[in-house]
Amino acid sequence: MVETIEWTNAGVVMIDQTRLPREKVFVTCRDYKEVAEAIRAMVIRGAPAIGVAAAMGVALGVEKADPANLDAEFTVICDTLAATRPTAVNLFWAIERMKRLYGTLKGRSIAEIRARMREEALEIRLDDIAINEAMGRYGAALVPDGKSVLTHCNAGALATAGYGTALGVIRAAVASGKKIDVFADETRPFLQGARLTAWELQQDGIPVTLITDNMAGHFFKGGRIGCVVVGADRIARNGDTANKIGTYSVAVLAKENGVPFYVAAPVSTLDLTLASGDLIPIEQRPAREVTEVFGVPVAPEGVRVENPAFDVTPARYITAIITERGVAFPPFEESLAKLVLG
Amino acid sequence: MVETIEWTNAGVVMIDQTRLPREKVFVTCRDYKEVAEAIRAMVIRGAPAIGVAAAMGVALGVEKADPANLDAEFTVICDTLAATRPTAVNLFWAIERMKRLYGTLKGRSIAEIRARMREEALEIRLDDIAINEAMGRYGAALVPDGKSVLTHCNAGALATAGYGTALGVIRAAVASGKKIDVFADETRPFLQGARLTAWELQQDGIPVTLITDNMAGHFFKGGRIGCVVVGADRIARNGDTANKIGTYSVAVLAKENGVPFYVAAPVSTLDLTLASGDLIPIEQRPAREVTEVFGVPVAPEGVRVENPAFDVTPARYITAIITERGVAFPPFEESLAKLVLG
Repeated sequence: MVETIEWTNAGVVMIDQTRLPREKVFVTCRDYKEVAEAIRAMVIRGAPAIGVAAAMGVALGVEKADPANLDAEFTVICDTLAATRPTAVNLFWAIERMKRLYGTLKGRSIAEIRARMREEALEIRLDDIAINEAMGRYGAALVPDGKSVLTHCNAGALATAGYGTALGVIRAAVASGKKIDVFADETRPFLQGARLTAWELQQDGIPVTLITDNMAGHFFKGGRIGCVVVGADRIARNGDTANKIGTYSVAVLAKENGVPFYVAAPVSTLDLTLASGDLIPIEQRPAREVTEVFGVPVAPEGVRVENPAFDVTPARYITAIITERGVAFPPFEESLAKLVLG
Repeated sequence: MVETIEWTNAGVVMIDQTRLPREKVFVTCRDYKEVAEAIRAMVIRGAPAIGVAAAMGVALGVEKADPANLDAEFTVICDTLAATRPTAVNLFWAIERMKRLYGTLKGRSIAEIRARMREEALEIRLDDIAINEAMGRYGAALVPDGKSVLTHCNAGALATAGYGTALGVIRAAVASGKKIDVFADETRPFLQGARLTAWELQQDGIPVTLITDNMAGHFFKGGRIGCVVVGADRIARNGDTANKIGTYSVAVLAKENGVPFYVAAPVSTLDLTLASGDLIPIEQRPAREVTEVFGVPVAPEGVRVENPAFDVTPARYITAIITERGVAFPPFEESLAKLVLG
C-alpha cells in the first residue's frame, strides 16, 4: 500500500488522489500554501487525512516563516489552511491542536518551536493510524460473517494516515477470519469508490464488487448485504452525521431493508458544539465535477448543476458509531458524550 | 426537437443516443439485424421507443425477406428482435402486434403484406406520440405547482416516438401554466439523465438542474421536490414496476420524505401475466459501462462489477400510475385491470 501523506526533507509528499488509479503520481508541497491548495483540489481528501495534512501544513508554514514576524504569520497560516474545506471538522481540530501547542511555546527559540510543531504533526499522523487500528478492533465484531459489506466513498487508508476508518473495520474483520466481501459504491461525482476504494481493496486482496451509487438499494433488497460501514466528516452531538453525498440515501435504504448502518470515525470527528446535523456547513463544489469525467463532458453545455459534496444522515438511521474509544449506540447524545468526556 | 426514430426509403433512421449530447449522429438501419443491433447497443432505448423500433424492424425484415420462404424468415426476424433486451415488455408487445397482423394476411400478395406491415409499424409510432400526449393531460394535474419535479433516467421524447412519458407529463404541466423546474438524476452508468433528459429539457426551455444519482435523497430532505415522475419498462399486475436501475432507491427516498412518486407509462407497458415484480427478468449489462465513461477508465483494471440495468419498485412506494387511459391509484391490482379491460 502506498503512503497517503509523509513528511520529507523536500516538503509534504502526498499521492495525488485525483489521478488514482490510472496514475500513481506524488505531489510535493514545499510551503503551506501548496498544502492548502492540495486540500482544496482534493489531491488529498478524507476527513482524517486532511486533518494530518493541515497539521503538516502548519508545521511547514512555521518552518518557512520569518522568525521576526512569527505570530502574525502563524495566524495567516492557520487561517489559510482552515479556509480550504468547510465540512470535515478534523481539519479544524488538527489546526486547533497545533495552535494549542504553539501557545505553550512562547519565548522558545525558533529552532525549538519548529521542531516541536513538526513533531506534533508527525504524532498526529502516527496517532491516526493507531486510532484506525483500534476502531478496527471494535468494529470487526459488528460485521456479520459470510455476507457482503457495503461502503460508500473512500474511508480507507487513502482517507487517513493509513489503515482507514470504514475500510479499517473491514480490514480488521477480514483479519479476524470473517468471510466477507465488499460492495463499493462508485461515489459520483468524484468517484472515490471506483477509483480509490476498489483499488485499495484490490491491493489488499479483499474481494470487492463495484456498483454505481443507484444500485445500492437494489442489492439491499436482494438480501446480500449484511451491513453498511461508512466514514464521517463531522458528527453532531445528537449523532447526526455529515459524510460524502449519497450517504443519507444509503442509510435510508439500509434501514428500509433491515440492514445495520455503521459509522466509523475517530473522536476528532465529533463536534459536540453542534446540537444537530442541521448546523453542519455543507460544501458546494464546482459544477465541472458533475458535467465532466476526467475532462470528458457528459452533459450538455451550460446545464445548471447542484454539487453538494456532503449530506447529513439523521441519527435515527444510524445503528452505531464506531470510535477508537469504543462503540456508541443510541441515544447518541449520551453515548457520544460519555466517549469524549470519559 | 430531433426525431427519435423514422421510417425512410433508405431504412429505419435513429438518432444515436449513445453519442448525445456531444454529437448528433443519425444511424440508418438497412435490415432487421441492424435494427436489432441498434436496440441491443442502446443506440435507441426507452421502453416505448424500442417497441416502435422492433415494429419497424419486423416491417423492414418482411420488406427484405425472400417471398418464397416468408413464414420461416418471419419467425427468425421476430425471434431476433425479441432477443435484444429482456426487461421492457413494450418490445414483446410490439412484436406480438406485428405477428397478429401477419397472421391475418395469409394468402395476400407479398406487396400487400409488406405495405400492411409497414403501415402497422408507422401506426405504432404515431399512436405512441398520441398516447404520450394523453398521458401528459392526465398527469399534468398531479404535478404540484411552484415546486421541482425529480425524474430519473430519460423517459422523454428520446425514449418514445416523441413527447415522452414522464417528460410528457412535465411538458404538459408546463404547457398548462404551472411554474415548475426539473431535477434530473444523471443516471449512471449510461448517463441518460445527464446526456438525454438535461439536453431535451434545455431544447424545450424547461429549467433543469442536473444532479448525480446519490444527491436525490439530499434534495428530497431539503423539501424542494414536489413530486417524482418516472417512466417504466414493465409493470406487473400488482403495480410493481421495473424501471431504470436506481428508480427503487428514488421511490424509497421519496416515500421517506413524503414526496408523491408517479409512474407514467402506456398501457402497453403493463404485463398482467405477471403477478408481481419478482417475476420480471432483469437485464445484466456489460461491466464496461460501469468501469468506463466514454471510453475513459474510471476504475482499476480487472475489478468485479455488477451492472443490472433495471430494478423493481414495489407497488407500495408508488402513489399512482399515469396511463393514456387515466390514472390508476392503489390498490393497483384492481385499478390497472380496470384500465386494461375497461
